[in-house]
Amino acid sequence: MGELSELFAPERIAVVGATDRDGSVGRAIMENLLDSFVGEVVPVNPKRESVFDRPARDGVGETDADLAVIVVPPDVAVESVREAGEAGIGNVVVITAGFGETGSEGAARERELKDVAEAYDLNLVGPNSLGIMSTPVGMNATFGPEDAAAGRMSFMSQSGAFITAVLDWANEQGIGFKDVVSLGNKAVLDESDFVDAWGTDPDTDVIIGYLEGIDDGQRFIRSAREVTQDTPIVLVKSGRTDAGAQAASSHTGTIAGSDEAYEAGLEQAGVIRAETVQELFDAARVLESQPVPERDGVAVITNAGGPGVMTTDAIGDSRLSMASFTDETLEAFREALPAGGNVYNPVDVVGDADNERFRDAVDVALGDENVGSVIVLACPTAVLDYEQLARDTVALQEEHEKPVAACFMGGARVEAAEAPLAEAGIPNYFDPARAVDGLDALSRFRDISEREYDEPTAFDVDRERAREILSSVEDRADTRLGVEAMDLLDAYGIETPEGDIVDAPADALEVAEGIDGDVVMKIVSPDILHKSDIGGVKVGVPHEEVYDAYEDLVSRARNYQPDATIIGVQVQEMVDLDDGVETIVGMNRDPQFGPLLLFGLGGIFVETLEDTTFRVAPVSEAEAETMTEEIDAAPLLRGARGRDPVDVAGVAETIQRLSQLVTDFPAILELDINPLVATPDVVKAVDVRLTVDPEEL
Amino acid sequence: MGELSELFAPERIAVVGATDRDGSVGRAIMENLLDSFVGEVVPVNPKRESVFDRPARDGVGETDADLAVIVVPPDVAVESVREAGEAGIGNVVVITAGFGETGSEGAARERELKDVAEAYDLNLVGPNSLGIMSTPVGMNATFGPEDAAAGRMSFMSQSGAFITAVLDWANEQGIGFKDVVSLGNKAVLDESDFVDAWGTDPDTDVIIGYLEGIDDGQRFIRSAREVTQDTPIVLVKSGRTDAGAQAASSHTGTIAGSDEAYEAGLEQAGVIRAETVQELFDAARVLESQPVPERDGVAVITNAGGPGVMTTDAIGDSRLSMASFTDETLEAFREALPAGGNVYNPVDVVGDADNERFRDAVDVALGDENVGSVIVLACPTAVLDYEQLARDTVALQEEHEKPVAACFMGGARVEAAEAPLAEAGIPNYFDPARAVDGLDALSRFRDISEREYDEPTAFDVDRERAREILSSVEDRADTRLGVEAMDLLDAYGIETPEGDIVDAPADALEVAEGIDGDVVMKIVSPDILHKSDIGGVKVGVPHEEVYDAYEDLVSRARNYQPDATIIGVQVQEMVDLDDGVETIVGMNRDPQFGPLLLFGLGGIFVETLEDTTFRVAPVSEAEAETMTEEIDAAPLLRGARGRDPVDVAGVAETIQRLSQLVTDFPAILELDINPLVATPDVVKAVDVRLTVDPEEL
Repeated sequence: MGELSELFAPERIAVVGATDRDGSVGRAIMENLLDSFVGEVVPVNPKRESVFDRPARDGVGETDADLAVIVVPPDVAVESVREAGEAGIGNVVVITAGFGETGSEGAARERELKDVAEAYDLNLVGPNSLGIMSTPVGMNATFGPEDAAAGRMSFMSQSGAFITAVLDWANEQGIGFKDVVSLGNKAVLDESDFVDAWGTDPDTDVIIGYLEGIDDGQRFIRSAREVTQDTPIVLVKSGRTDAGAQAASSHTGTIAGSDEAYEAGLEQAGVIRAETVQELFDAARVLESQPVPERDGVAVITNAGGPGVMTTDAIGDSRLSMASFTDETLEAFREALPAGGNVYNPVDVVGDADNERFRDAVDVALGDENVGSVIVLACPTAVLDYEQLARDTVALQEEHEKPVAACFMGGARVEAAEAPLAEAGIPNYFDPARAVDGLDALSRFRDISEREYDEPTAFDVDRERAREILSSVEDRADTRLGVEAMDLLDAYGIETPEGDIVDAPADALEVAEGIDGDVVMKIVSPDILHKSDIGGVKVGVPHEEVYDAYEDLVSRARNYQPDATIIGVQVQEMVDLDDGVETIVGMNRDPQFGPLLLFGLGGIFVETLEDTTFRVAPVSEAEAETMTEEIDAAPLLRGARGRDPVDVAGVAETIQRLSQLVTDFPAILELDINPLVATPDVVKAVDVRLTVDPEEL
Repeated sequence: MGELSELFAPERIAVVGATDRDGSVGRAIMENLLDSFVGEVVPVNPKRESVFDRPARDGVGETDADLAVIVVPPDVAVESVREAGEAGIGNVVVITAGFGETGSEGAARERELKDVAEAYDLNLVGPNSLGIMSTPVGMNATFGPEDAAAGRMSFMSQSGAFITAVLDWANEQGIGFKDVVSLGNKAVLDESDFVDAWGTDPDTDVIIGYLEGIDDGQRFIRSAREVTQDTPIVLVKSGRTDAGAQAASSHTGTIAGSDEAYEAGLEQAGVIRAETVQELFDAARVLESQPVPERDGVAVITNAGGPGVMTTDAIGDSRLSMASFTDETLEAFREALPAGGNVYNPVDVVGDADNERFRDAVDVALGDENVGSVIVLACPTAVLDYEQLARDTVALQEEHEKPVAACFMGGARVEAAEAPLAEAGIPNYFDPARAVDGLDALSRFRDISEREYDEPTAFDVDRERAREILSSVEDRADTRLGVEAMDLLDAYGIETPEGDIVDAPADALEVAEGIDGDVVMKIVSPDILHKSDIGGVKVGVPHEEVYDAYEDLVSRARNYQPDATIIGVQVQEMVDLDDGVETIVGMNRDPQFGPLLLFGLGGIFVETLEDTTFRVAPVSEAEAETMTEEIDAAPLLRGARGRDPVDVAGVAETIQRLSQLVTDFPAILELDINPLVATPDVVKAVDVRLTVDPEEL
């Protein structure tokens, strides 16, 4: 595949299916291209002599183009792409619809298209795409009604209609783009390819996108991690909610992965996820134009107390904080402000403040070393010239090189201020919460760009033994394993309680006698999922009662389900919960991101409180530690209410060892260690359940 | 006090301190009033012959006005108000600043002002107010630069600057108002008064406001409950966050109550609380103009799949749901839509849909009995006329009398559609999430207006005994009570474990022998707050060990703090936790709302998980039940994971009995029952702590 950057900088574009017939897609593309493309546009249409006064070629092979745009009907589209490949044209945009989105015939056609693209090593966008744009060469190779203005954001979208709507709106707002791509069905090029390409594009400062799914989650994480060290990525990934996921799935025809996986994967990728269109562009605009703040303290300079309080609330809702001023700053404010003013943050320069007083206060705040950014928050007054305040704000922002957000409240009175602010990339909002959201995105990107991604630790494990244990399902009708697979954990160095599974009462007693103190006994049967519900668990059994307890457990199981397969009874040491916390560590395999690890509060709280956090495996030590810090119950692990802290490092190591296990064995479809009991001294996996796919072994 | 409605419909307004001096507040008010007020404006200024060519009176007593606006300096303002009262002028707006907001001298002046207002029974707005407006009589009695347009929202604000900003913006947006009030320092009239007044005002359809505090929470709840049966109230109450509360407190000089109290109080009052300015107006606009939906199912009709998914996500985030269509509707869509369309919700009429197809689909959806409201979601295409779609949408909304939200995405292309939509009160947003927020507010208001507020149950309790127990603090240095006050709960019918407090080991044994099974023993001392930390609690003590346990507990307490007051040892029955849940029920007294009840998950989870909910007491049975349903752990109470459900009705009754106790005794400053153990059979208060104010007994 040629460099993807070439897709956006062609010199000659062949339009296969070009026409000047009214209302046709082929005409729309020709018009858009002829309108402003700096290179040559070559129509291909064997049925016409010329299109828009340009001689039409019979085939794409005769065009000498470096980009072919395909708008012919679906039944001949693949052949056209083949001809393009044959002729050495490396870049192809397939506008034509009627592929994977339309049922089995279309799906077969899409597979064929993919094969051709592979055979000729093509950069292929689509099919079912609105097209692509690149403003530096004036290329609008879409059939949409709007041209993009020039800018430094590059934008990809899985919805062509959304591109049309955004461009119409962006043109009005003065927002420009470098490249725009309608991803279509993503038969060949997908979101990861464009992340890679734009990550090294000197003309792209921010990558934004609307996605309904990510094809290869693991690859996306690798690509985006690399790119977001320098270039921010802001995405709307729709299908966040159950209803939305169902709608996305029926719209794109793909199996929706869980939103937990997307949430975790996008976070690990360093992507800033926007929930709404407004959030997407509010974040993108400041990331394009403003420097990142060196610290999270914000100074609010206002001529109105009430809006100052609202802004403080919005800062309280965000990852930012109200800056504490240095003594010098406070002194400067005391001198500059009249009685009734407030020198503490939010700084109230008072309703009678003129431009000079307002400007000086913003200047002082920006000069304070504790201040990472400033919000200039103004209400209209008779003595304040908004346009002048805008110009002062812009000049001070440039002088201090710190991010500044503007919240000039009002309507008609603000209009004159909009242009100088917008020109300097300082968006102005009526609602202080949106100004804060912008600064929040800058702060998040600073942290993302400073992240270090460590390699996962490779523990010394017994992989062969693990494989043997997993292979035991091959002899069974059932692919689920329970406590009989505790040795699997052992093979990967995850500590389990002393004990064993036995199939005779005398053996149970023998195992118990090897254990100090009372024991726990559990029925072991693949047919009994909820052991407690049938009285299949006995806690605190003294040695002298072990024999009878064995008999009782087996008879309970038989009563419950006469034909149940009973593997035996597990006899286990008691793990003291008094100073411990029950947690859960688990994994399920996501169709897009692969192994998704879960950590949370365990026991009876798992389902009810859902105090959990997720990561895509493999995870590094730092990521595993972060997981133990992210749950609401984290302080319990660290010794809340006078308790001793539990072995949190041991919990994090268990997460990493599980991460290694599920990465090593794609055959493990899902696995739960619940509870994983953590005490101040030990971390032990008390119970395990997993499902294995024998085909993958 | 005369009817507050008279404040907004004066016939003669006296402006005390009227002047035509440039840049003065007195001039600004005269100009604003002369501009459009339908009645007479009478300037009062003993130093001038005339103001704006109107003869100036020497005193307000000579004006025969029914509203006096006071703009004289603070040192003479109170006297002017007195004169107005003397002259029988019942309505006064004090613009003058320099009262409570400026320190002790100003506070004294404000008290004086209040006394005068009371003596003459005045409707007094302010002091430190921007003024008031009422559009039906063209009255702008403010010194702000903007006039309000006529409309059916009435707006109060604790920030004058915010009013100025909002009006400038609202005029641009075509949003009008009936009355506008700048509350100022609220020396006399406060938010509750205006809620009452606007609640019976036939020209006010929506009440909106910006508040930094509510003066009398209990009164506000009563007023707002009544009003919101018909008229929606949407408020921003700032100081939500810790930082914001601090800023609000320094801005208004009042003690900030907890945001938990505001959140609970506003909910109980039936107020829709907006977090941001955008939310405030998005909600208010639809509440003013659209009918409430009869059901929460929303139909989304779109010509673009991607935005349809985004909208579905936004609906998933809200209290609304995606409507399921009837078979007739599905059949109608199947007939009307081409291949590639989607007849299920979100309905995709496909990108090539013309106005007729789009219109018909919206019509069908609105006709479906399962559909409560419709979102018309459109992306620009060559075949769709946005203006026509707007007109069709308006006509269909009126025909079906169901709420409709518009999300016509785009910029310049949408402009022509804005006017017909806005005229019909259908706000149009680029971001589907905002359209959904509007429908969400309508649905919330429907539920609020249908609420029934039951009286709290009056349980038969032993109030005298409770008073005696509380009075025991009068003999002590400490105003805190612990387990020695368990009888207080008993007096109010809250069950406690069997047992007693004793001060000799032999007595301990006697109590234990009256209890079936092992006992719990706890040291009882006002000086030892965290009993567990010093080993001051013994669980599962067999009778034969009770004597020694007593000695041990006392000696531990002595070791910990030699001079501790030791009341004795509590000997208590063991409450079996195996099938129980530890909860917490508590109360603290909020400065604005009074007794604030808390219910939540108890034990070690209280502080860490903060799984709690709050209500202002007194609560009805229904409210207490709702509290038990609102915590995240609610399913645990109702028998999650195969456990038996606990006695939830008993928990709710305990909440109500506590509500009655803290309402009966304002002397109880705070009280926690933790844990309140709930099992399938019993609900028992195992431990209690409270603080009593002897002055209030």
